[in-house]
Amino acid sequence: MTHWEDFYNTHLPPTDFEDNRSLLKEFCERHNKLKNRIVLVTSGGTTIPLEHNTVRFVDNFSAGTRGSSSAEYFLDHNYAVIFMYRQKSLEPFTRHFTGQQFFDMLDITDNGQSTTITVKPDSVDVFAPILAKYKHARESQMILYMSFTSVVDYMWLLRATCECLTAFEDRAVLYLAAAVSDFYIPQDKMPTHKIQSGEGPPTISLQLVPKMLAPLVNLWVPHAYVVSFKLETDENLLIAKARDSLSKYKHKLVIANILQTRKHRVVFVTPTTSYEVHLSREQSLQGLEIEEPIVADVVLKHSEFININFNTDQRQRGSVVASK
Amino acid sequence: MTHWEDFYNTHLPPTDFEDNRSLLKEFCERHNKLKNRIVLVTSGGTTIPLEHNTVRFVDNFSAGTRGSSSAEYFLDHNYAVIFMYRQKSLEPFTRHFTGQQFFDMLDITDNGQSTTITVKPDSVDVFAPILAKYKHARESQMILYMSFTSVVDYMWLLRATCECLTAFEDRAVLYLAAAVSDFYIPQDKMPTHKIQSGEGPPTISLQLVPKMLAPLVNLWVPHAYVVSFKLETDENLLIAKARDSLSKYKHKLVIANILQTRKHRVVFVTPTTSYEVHLSREQSLQGLEIEEPIVADVVLKHSEFININFNTDQRQRGSVVASK
Repeated sequence: MTHWEDFYNTHLPPTDFEDNRSLLKEFCERHNKLKNRIVLVTSGGTTIPLEHNTVRFVDNFSAGTRGSSSAEYFLDHNYAVIFMYRQKSLEPFTRHFTGQQFFDMLDITDNGQSTTITVKPDSVDVFAPILAKYKHARESQMILYMSFTSVVDYMWLLRATCECLTAFEDRAVLYLAAAVSDFYIPQDKMPTHKIQSGEGPPTISLQLVPKMLAPLVNLWVPHAYVVSFKLETDENLLIAKARDSLSKYKHKLVIANILQTRKHRVVFVTPTTSYEVHLSREQSLQGLEIEEPIVADVVLKHSEFININFNTDQRQRGSVVASK
Repeated sequence: MTHWEDFYNTHLPPTDFEDNRSLLKEFCERHNKLKNRIVLVTSGGTTIPLEHNTVRFVDNFSAGTRGSSSAEYFLDHNYAVIFMYRQKSLEPFTRHFTGQQFFDMLDITDNGQSTTITVKPDSVDVFAPILAKYKHARESQMILYMSFTSVVDYMWLLRATCECLTAFEDRAVLYLAAAVSDFYIPQDKMPTHKIQSGEGPPTISLQLVPKMLAPLVNLWVPHAYVVSFKLETDENLLIAKARDSLSKYKHKLVIANILQTRKHRVVFVTPTTSYEVHLSREQSLQGLEIEEPIVADVVLKHSEFININFNTDQRQRGSVVASK
């Protein structure tokens, strides 16, 4: 495995990196002044290019459902949201409609002089509250969108975001829902041109991506509330792997889920507890999303975490005074 | 390389295959009765799953721009269009707007009693003609959407479509713009569960996908006008590879393009000629799309092809009569 510092030393930042860094800085400074809570939600999969002129890449399955819906619920809890998502994956609010669904909701009327386009009355009931929330989030500048494609883009954005979040101390949550590739092909092992099929089937040799959770928890945002996700297809491995992760990286919470049941069941694993959050059949049928109770629970745990820190601070201050 | 028949024998069709086949049959029978011309436009990339419970896959880069825009222009030329596209890739008409662009075009007004949502007047000019064309194509049932994800889904849909198109004889165009993977992992070499990173970086051994253009041209739609695409990153290989393809598969036209310049320049390669179709700088700046002249040229060539067949038929009939 490459050391994390070597990874940044050998892979250039994406071309729009400095622009994104300015946006991040402005967004964070504003919300930090307001003493707001803030969450970084990462969402969607990352790609590993197989060639420099990228025609082929390895991808991680992730539509971005978990991240994009969670971002909406964090906004409901008055968190400022940095939504860091894979380009073309689902986004908060717009995720509720595909392109064709939009077009089919619309009526055109032409009275000879002017054309108007309106949303059909029977679609307004569903659409209006979503559109209103979107407009509110944009106008109050409570959400910042940042997109990535490759695992390298992701890593650069992640570190830059942490550099801005560290000032929030325990008011920051990192909700790392993106499906980040474990493997990559180092720059110097990548062919320049498209691999030719005439040369026979290629064998792709991958290398392990350094686990950024280690420097993230220990160095970049040591006071933040960090939540990671574990997706497995094998139930037997799930809890054990979540515990391994917690004891290795020392963060606060792993939300563990199985690919096939992830839409209605997850397991919250902390260093001392593990419990299920799930939707009943009725709740699923009513259209409730599991991200609503997931985010509510994370927010609750985050509040407890801030209170514990506050009490510890008070006690330490108290004891300092007492010992004078 | 696997033989094409073995590929179908060892890979199951996608779960929605029979539904799609019924839709295809109905669509084709209707348009064949009307003696319409028809085009199959394939669009977007295919995936190769790396595991049975798919978490990771190899993907081909393709947003679906070429296919989705070409489908619109074929509709302008009164072709019935089967739009066979990678799920989540760009689609005709809706491709012009992202989700956020839609939301930002809309105004909500609430007069206390009812809520209305309208498209802002300054967006209507751009949006109305696109929406009108979309509605016309849907209402006149000139377009059928079929989606795929993996290379296996694609192969099954491609053959089923050809089975329906063969009745159109030379009135059918196959415009194969999808970026189909050259490689895949056979079912029996695929692990059931997610590859574990603890086991060290995996080595992925790929196999060549059989070239379906061979049975397609020779057996499935022997009378159709078949157009394939070649995308390369190396200019030096481009024309030679296009010629190789034509002499191997005996179809009518290869549209060759370089990844970096594909938005404003392609080369039409036929068995006897090769010439460039490109946009000038002014045309690009005016927002003209290269797919407009590409499709116009393909339609022209298709008409010539039908006329030649017609004349040959007439001559043969004439000579049969003469020899009686």
